[in-house]
Amino acid sequence: MANPVVPSSGVLTPLGLDAVRLAPGFWGDRRTLDQDVIIGHCLEWMDKLGWIGNFRGEPRRGREFADSEVYKLLEAMAWTGDGRFDELAATVVAAQEPDGYLNTRWSGDRYRDFEWGHELYCAGHLIQAGVARWRTAGGHPLTEAVLRAADQVCRRFMEGHEVCGHPEVEMALVELYRLTGAERYLEMARRFVERRGRPALADIELGRAYFQDDVPVRRAPSFGGHAVRAMYLACGAVDVAVETGDTELLAAVEAQWEHTVARRTHLTGGMGSRHTGESFGEDFELPPDRAYAETCAGIGSVMLAHRLLLATGRSRYADQAERTLYNLVAASPALDGRSFFYANPLHVRTPGRVTEDVSPRAESASRAPWFQVSCCPTNLARTFASLPAYVATATPGGIQIHHPTACEIGHDGLTVRVETGYPWSGSVTVRVLEAPDTPRHVSLRLPPWAAGALRPGGAVFRGPGDLTPVRRGAALVFGERVWTPGEVIAAELPMEARWVRPDPRVDAVRGCAAVERGPLVYCAESPGDEVRLAEVVVDATRPPVERTGDSASRSSMTDDALALSRTADDIPAGSGTADDPAHDGPLQGGPLHDGPLHDGALHDGAVELEVRASRRPGTPEAPEDPEGDDGRPYGEAGGAPREEEITLRLVPYHRWGNHGPATMRVWLPTG
Amino acid sequence: MANPVVPSSGVLTPLGLDAVRLAPGFWGDRRTLDQDVIIGHCLEWMDKLGWIGNFRGEPRRGREFADSEVYKLLEAMAWTGDGRFDELAATVVAAQEPDGYLNTRWSGDRYRDFEWGHELYCAGHLIQAGVARWRTAGGHPLTEAVLRAADQVCRRFMEGHEVCGHPEVEMALVELYRLTGAERYLEMARRFVERRGRPALADIELGRAYFQDDVPVRRAPSFGGHAVRAMYLACGAVDVAVETGDTELLAAVEAQWEHTVARRTHLTGGMGSRHTGESFGEDFELPPDRAYAETCAGIGSVMLAHRLLLATGRSRYADQAERTLYNLVAASPALDGRSFFYANPLHVRTPGRVTEDVSPRAESASRAPWFQVSCCPTNLARTFASLPAYVATATPGGIQIHHPTACEIGHDGLTVRVETGYPWSGSVTVRVLEAPDTPRHVSLRLPPWAAGALRPGGAVFRGPGDLTPVRRGAALVFGERVWTPGEVIAAELPMEARWVRPDPRVDAVRGCAAVERGPLVYCAESPGDEVRLAEVVVDATRPPVERTGDSASRSSMTDDALALSRTADDIPAGSGTADDPAHDGPLQGGPLHDGPLHDGALHDGAVELEVRASRRPGTPEAPEDPEGDDGRPYGEAGGAPREEEITLRLVPYHRWGNHGPATMRVWLPTG
Repeated sequence: MANPVVPSSGVLTPLGLDAVRLAPGFWGDRRTLDQDVIIGHCLEWMDKLGWIGNFRGEPRRGREFADSEVYKLLEAMAWTGDGRFDELAATVVAAQEPDGYLNTRWSGDRYRDFEWGHELYCAGHLIQAGVARWRTAGGHPLTEAVLRAADQVCRRFMEGHEVCGHPEVEMALVELYRLTGAERYLEMARRFVERRGRPALADIELGRAYFQDDVPVRRAPSFGGHAVRAMYLACGAVDVAVETGDTELLAAVEAQWEHTVARRTHLTGGMGSRHTGESFGEDFELPPDRAYAETCAGIGSVMLAHRLLLATGRSRYADQAERTLYNLVAASPALDGRSFFYANPLHVRTPGRVTEDVSPRAESASRAPWFQVSCCPTNLARTFASLPAYVATATPGGIQIHHPTACEIGHDGLTVRVETGYPWSGSVTVRVLEAPDTPRHVSLRLPPWAAGALRPGGAVFRGPGDLTPVRRGAALVFGERVWTPGEVIAAELPMEARWVRPDPRVDAVRGCAAVERGPLVYCAESPGDEVRLAEVVVDATRPPVERTGDSASRSSMTDDALALSRTADDIPAGSGTADDPAHDGPLQGGPLHDGPLHDGALHDGAVELEVRASRRPGTPEAPEDPEGDDGRPYGEAGGAPREEEITLRLVPYHRWGNHGPATMRVWLPTG
Repeated sequence: MANPVVPSSGVLTPLGLDAVRLAPGFWGDRRTLDQDVIIGHCLEWMDKLGWIGNFRGEPRRGREFADSEVYKLLEAMAWTGDGRFDELAATVVAAQEPDGYLNTRWSGDRYRDFEWGHELYCAGHLIQAGVARWRTAGGHPLTEAVLRAADQVCRRFMEGHEVCGHPEVEMALVELYRLTGAERYLEMARRFVERRGRPALADIELGRAYFQDDVPVRRAPSFGGHAVRAMYLACGAVDVAVETGDTELLAAVEAQWEHTVARRTHLTGGMGSRHTGESFGEDFELPPDRAYAETCAGIGSVMLAHRLLLATGRSRYADQAERTLYNLVAASPALDGRSFFYANPLHVRTPGRVTEDVSPRAESASRAPWFQVSCCPTNLARTFASLPAYVATATPGGIQIHHPTACEIGHDGLTVRVETGYPWSGSVTVRVLEAPDTPRHVSLRLPPWAAGALRPGGAVFRGPGDLTPVRRGAALVFGERVWTPGEVIAAELPMEARWVRPDPRVDAVRGCAAVERGPLVYCAESPGDEVRLAEVVVDATRPPVERTGDSASRSSMTDDALALSRTADDIPAGSGTADDPAHDGPLQGGPLHDGPLHDGALHDGAVELEVRASRRPGTPEAPEDPEGDDGRPYGEAGGAPREEEITLRLVPYHRWGNHGPATMRVWLPTG
């Protein structure tokens, strides 16, 4: 089955990419953008920077894990059937050593640095690329190379206590087991999971918690440390638990997930509160301005939620995946697919600039076309490429639609077309195209914000004839019944914008509220100096309203969106090489991109909102009379009085930063 | 003159350590603790860890800047006349190379890494130690070594464009110029200051702003980057400006200081908002929980404010120095002087633990007896040793008392005794012991919170007879007049505790208030699980009241205060060596300290406060019914209702963390 995750058991069964075909719409457009722009963008940059040349024995360029970016791109190409796959795969395969080892950084000097070397991490991504190829188009020299590589890992590591500082190989090995049935891969993955936290790695400045080696996986109360590593490890742990029937391990990860979502996750679904160690913080340490919320951690969170959904069938995992997909994964790429956020803060005070002088890796006020640590663009490429895998699942009795988006879903004789402008519109129509003569159900996940719609006077759910849906958990189930082609299920989800308030223990956003509409988190954005967001106080007693007319259309993407975009042609070859290891910043160079504009596809009727607000100037800063006001931002007086009623425009968070440098905030002060 | 800073011009003239003699009291006790405990504690640890052995050619231990800790300790010993100075100095001098170069890390491999090598930084601390010795007890083999070292620096660096990644040598060279009159030292310092930001150093991951090389010093709008480096560079810039008459440079630093105090400084005076790069953040980015507020940055801020006070006479510099001394510098050491905070957050959610496994360098929830990067303990040692230098200044017409503390001040025939229990009491008495037969004034700085006391009905200021003080700026000036021994000036500063509120642009503490009393910032502290601070909401409409009776005495230091203390004897020799460069964490080991308890001196009548509060439980975390509450800390409902009125005890911030692991917060939610 053409799907990145195909468990041998679980409450729900995934559907292959051939069974779910995205049509133009929010996610279909992004997959098209991936095929048309993002994959090529990544290929150009890695070619130019020498990361592909590494496999040809050219002088080594890039960070120690640069190989993994090539593998993630191969995986993206596999899921999309990209014609460039063969040539790139051949380059990779040619670099493999006779015993199966393949790493352009550590060849000849293997396995000396488990803390930072990323060798097994790279091997994991290689394996995933091979699995993707196998499941989409069958055997290939790359898939044979992957088996050799995996066998080398098993021979070397089956005994002993070593693990990789960056988890990843665990879930890859389980998937290879699922594909081949060779139990050594599962056993190797199980041992890697179990070895952690005994401890298995050396102490480092950031502490062993950084790479989840401070406590055994099944004893941890929460996810912690480096957020991407935590997510990838948890994915591997779920995969091992499902395949070995280890219910205790599965329950442990579920409990960690609950703790993390309740106390360590931003409104956008973003995970990671500290730039230091790219890590989770303490419970309720959720700063909007210094949120790290790395794109890859969001992708990892979606991967994990999907695995937990398949294993348990609980809709809350799909709820969180939806939140993270719309408000973090979709936020990372610019609308033109040529620049990316690495960190995804919820508040930016200073309009972003991207220069080599001042931008550390996670400069988060502007998207950058590439990074020295460029895990996010290629991770987005493979995620968008495999998006259909997340949309729906099956059981013997029917199909479950978890994410309403324009598509066709076909499984076991039942084919339906989903028609919707979601997330802009709440109308979701499921039209039966083909049906078997045996009963089936069609279920639709009801997001938590739509739960009230089931009450009298709420939204409308119509089945054909007098068919009434049944609530099962958080899903609306139509059927089971024998369907007739042409029958239609229609749902109208309530899309009124709503104010959201934080738990009082989230200190960093006390006295603030945020706006959501459907699955989308909104934000105020201030291109240029139009509005000084630092002075805005919103009136959260009045509901946000939809913005209409000419003023709304101004906010669609203009040429400004390209102000921060560059193509690989603009930069000199070999820029940001291994010779300059200290520089991890976004890479820039040359004139503005003036190539063809990928326009229109993502102009899909974005809804903007308006709220009532007022401006409140700050306290004076340069006191004329020092008596009573010493210039510090603290004093005995209360806040300054409000002035000047204004209307504050809100845009979907995932669309911010596409019009040039701006300030931005999701959490808006209410007083 | 026995003072670390002796400018050749300026509005105010410093007084030597012989002219200001501290008596028992808040600061006098701390200087005694330094002499009795802290200096010896530092000596023991550096001896045990091999940092002193480095000078004897033993296998190199410690970080690349370990030499500087030995120099700072020598400086502390010089200011206190410590008998161990000669032996330690001889060890250092013996390691000097014939041309004057002296560095145990880079000997034979000089000046290869200006970004991270810290060679000139170490040279600066060596020079400062030599200046301290010269000014307190005259020439010494160390002072000769210092001249050789400084001359070697001048020969090597007078031409060219190189600077040290960590500023420090600039102010040291100016002070050596002030001592010797040799203009090459001033010129060398001037060039080091001017070279920055052209740029002079290589780009690094954190960006050149990290070491203030992103913009020339006189063009920077604010302090930024690594906070300690920023403060040390600014000190050097002021010193150069004063000695060269560069009013533009002085004005630039003054403007940077104003900007930084208004927008980038915590309530405690702490500077640095980001653990990443140990740096300042954006304007108004002042998180209480992730405040870095390094002890050394606070010391640097006091050093800078003192220089600006001497140059300009503006009391606001002394105001900020006072705030920082009482609420940051005094907070770092435990009451027993055997453990130290490196970072000084204003909010700790999780009771601290100090274990080698999980504590990065700046683990800030507990004090540690030593660190691999152990700049703070030795910096405290030299600062406490030279405390008298900050208390008062002179002009030809009289003396100015900037920091009321028990002491005697003698200058130019006028000797006074200051009697006060400040900061616990607002009573300050200045008794004339000796007086010349020419007119003199005595002035007393009026802190901003006491300014209202000058209004009718405010506090009392009495001079002898009918002498009425005159307000000059923020100072009360008594005289000029001919004084008679036995005459007394008495002031009563208003010590009512007060609520302080943040500027609304300080997002991280919106909806909170803090309590101050006199110069002290207070905090709520929760040893054990006595009070769950995460649930507390205070009533800031009622003034805080002083805590009395038995309950108050419970909070004085008990044996618990030693729970986190260790002596150097407890740890194995060579622990935390250069062989383990990745580990920067606090060093621990062995059983609890059971040596003699330095008790009593710091039990100086600390005043505790009480405020009215209520408990507010958080939202439920594990929803039974997922509908409408999805377990996330965000929702459409408002805050939970308040429950259970309580009385919340507040303690001076500088005393928190002396009773074992605890949660703590300075900023208290008001609703």
